[in-house]
Amino acid sequence: MSVVAARGFTAAGLHCGVKTDGVPDLALVKCDVPAAAAAVFTTSSTASPVVEMGRRAVADGTLRAVAAVSGCANAGVGRPGREAAERVAEEAARLLGAGPEDVLLSATGPIGTLLPDDLVRAGLERAVPRLSGDPAGGDAAAAAILTTDARAKQTRRRGGGYQLGGMAKGAGMVRPDMATMLAYLTTDAQVPAGQLREALAEAVEVSFNSLNIDGCQSTNDTVAVLASGLSGVKPRPDEFAALLADACQDLARQMADDAEGATRAVTLKVAGAADDGAARRIGRIVADSALVRTSFYGGDPNWGRLLAAAGVAGCDISPDQVSISYAGVETARNGVAVPYDEEDLFRKLEGDFTVEMTVGDGPGRAVILTNDLTPEYAVFNGERS
Amino acid sequence: MSVVAARGFTAAGLHCGVKTDGVPDLALVKCDVPAAAAAVFTTSSTASPVVEMGRRAVADGTLRAVAAVSGCANAGVGRPGREAAERVAEEAARLLGAGPEDVLLSATGPIGTLLPDDLVRAGLERAVPRLSGDPAGGDAAAAAILTTDARAKQTRRRGGGYQLGGMAKGAGMVRPDMATMLAYLTTDAQVPAGQLREALAEAVEVSFNSLNIDGCQSTNDTVAVLASGLSGVKPRPDEFAALLADACQDLARQMADDAEGATRAVTLKVAGAADDGAARRIGRIVADSALVRTSFYGGDPNWGRLLAAAGVAGCDISPDQVSISYAGVETARNGVAVPYDEEDLFRKLEGDFTVEMTVGDGPGRAVILTNDLTPEYAVFNGERS
Repeated sequence: MSVVAARGFTAAGLHCGVKTDGVPDLALVKCDVPAAAAAVFTTSSTASPVVEMGRRAVADGTLRAVAAVSGCANAGVGRPGREAAERVAEEAARLLGAGPEDVLLSATGPIGTLLPDDLVRAGLERAVPRLSGDPAGGDAAAAAILTTDARAKQTRRRGGGYQLGGMAKGAGMVRPDMATMLAYLTTDAQVPAGQLREALAEAVEVSFNSLNIDGCQSTNDTVAVLASGLSGVKPRPDEFAALLADACQDLARQMADDAEGATRAVTLKVAGAADDGAARRIGRIVADSALVRTSFYGGDPNWGRLLAAAGVAGCDISPDQVSISYAGVETARNGVAVPYDEEDLFRKLEGDFTVEMTVGDGPGRAVILTNDLTPEYAVFNGERS
Repeated sequence: MSVVAARGFTAAGLHCGVKTDGVPDLALVKCDVPAAAAAVFTTSSTASPVVEMGRRAVADGTLRAVAAVSGCANAGVGRPGREAAERVAEEAARLLGAGPEDVLLSATGPIGTLLPDDLVRAGLERAVPRLSGDPAGGDAAAAAILTTDARAKQTRRRGGGYQLGGMAKGAGMVRPDMATMLAYLTTDAQVPAGQLREALAEAVEVSFNSLNIDGCQSTNDTVAVLASGLSGVKPRPDEFAALLADACQDLARQMADDAEGATRAVTLKVAGAADDGAARRIGRIVADSALVRTSFYGGDPNWGRLLAAAGVAGCDISPDQVSISYAGVETARNGVAVPYDEEDLFRKLEGDFTVEMTVGDGPGRAVILTNDLTPEYAVFNGERS
């Protein structure tokens, strides 16, 4: 259910023809009332025109609906792509009795192909009557945003007297042509747009921005939260922010677990940085390193590669304060190798594992979810699309 | 010859025991007179202590010698590593009748292993009597700095009445544990240290910093230039800078060609950026992308991945102005796909190729040397060290 867990939301998902294999490719989520809304988008300067439209739509802090197309990113498509997207947003608004800037339109799929707006508009016409607050409506929407995901990703959290649900796709793909990540969260808490924006920015930082699969940001990444207010409950800002962060982390973990080209999920914990932001920068640059990720693939506790990668994060790190453990086994303490039982540790690194990296004595911490870089990754991504 | 091509320089290379397989692992280059000198080092905050020592040695703009050890990075080794490196530098200075800060010490190899300074000091004692200005001396030094390089890398350029030579190792490795890049250039031109510094900074930018093999900067990267002045020729600054850049580009190209885990060398030309620096940033982020490099492996003209990667360079790019050609065949013009003969282009991408990417109408240009990311890369780098 998830995206329809909160009062006021209905959803639908169906096949409109963007994908050629008959699977669902159009999701629609509607709020019965104008919802307070906030969204975070890719910072790419080559973003799809739907991202620019999305920024405009959410600028006034309200949305009535989300429409998401899978199977076409509508990026690298010039002015015709912008016009096609505008026609789709206008049609969605018309069908829902709203203004075009009340609808957030997303797209995900290959770059360089124009959105077939006639198919999408016809699909919207069929989707509106199917909108449902039943769990099946949420499930259908969650299925329709997927590209190469193996599984749908949904979450649900209960606040004090209100609901928070969500759905997501992406990131852990073997074919990251389509690795755009999309996530939509809905709540019936009464949360004004400004507070939603703050809570979402924090939540994205500790969830989707702490997820590293292939180090790439796409042309279409979008995370949005809509609040209907229909529970009548006004949660405390910190309480709501924590619940939203928790829901986003749940979705991010599901994405990490869905990395088909990977053999191991690795949780990288960084501690001792100057602040949390520095810890995240260090963690992300380490998790971005092809050398680090191939050593994960080999189940090799090669802490030297982590040390070397951390060194280029642009953060103040004293090598003499760096300690690194794999699966709870210390391999380096204060920048120097520590002996360990190799056979025992190698066995522990045969499946998913956690790496803990202390970089100093500061209070900054971060947790990055990543995985290994495998020969299969290169094989899959080397295939012509 | 190369590093001994210029008057005043002698060199030697031998096996001192850092490597266990009997191959050369200690190079020594000496200048008969105090040489004007400049160097560029890794910006890593987890750099080897030899890097900090090197910065101090070159701070006064003079050097008498370079000693380079291969088979041990002496990084991730704490205070004992600093002390071992200092003992080596002191011994080299004593043997050459110079001060410890007249010797630039470098190290390259696995991280986390302490420099065996007794072996290196004994090796230096044997190296000094072997110092030779004959080509064989330069060849021996060039061989002794290698780690997993398949071939030694040397260069020689002739200026108007003076010589410029050099040797290098690194970068295009299948085992980038040891992917430190080292390069040493020598000249008998009369060039003051300040001018050397400027020329070297420019040369490094358009050569080694435009080389992308696995996107990682190591704990030990070092590029140094020494000028004996013994030709008596004072070249024009721009002329000398151009010759130095040319020599560095020659060495960088040899590194790119030595990437054992790769099947294709790719030359990425970026044009139309705001300035050369922006073009280089865009080129490097594109060449860093695992998705771009796996598409190179597949011989797949997947320009959408280049567009997406360029978008996160933090530079002002208008997607509508992006045009991309592979092997001279246009695949996207002004941000939109262009039809092309697939069979013909696929054939052209079976070996090394050039990708041209125009990102706007600015004057900025850059050329990045990279290669493909192959399953073999993951296999090799996944092996336990």
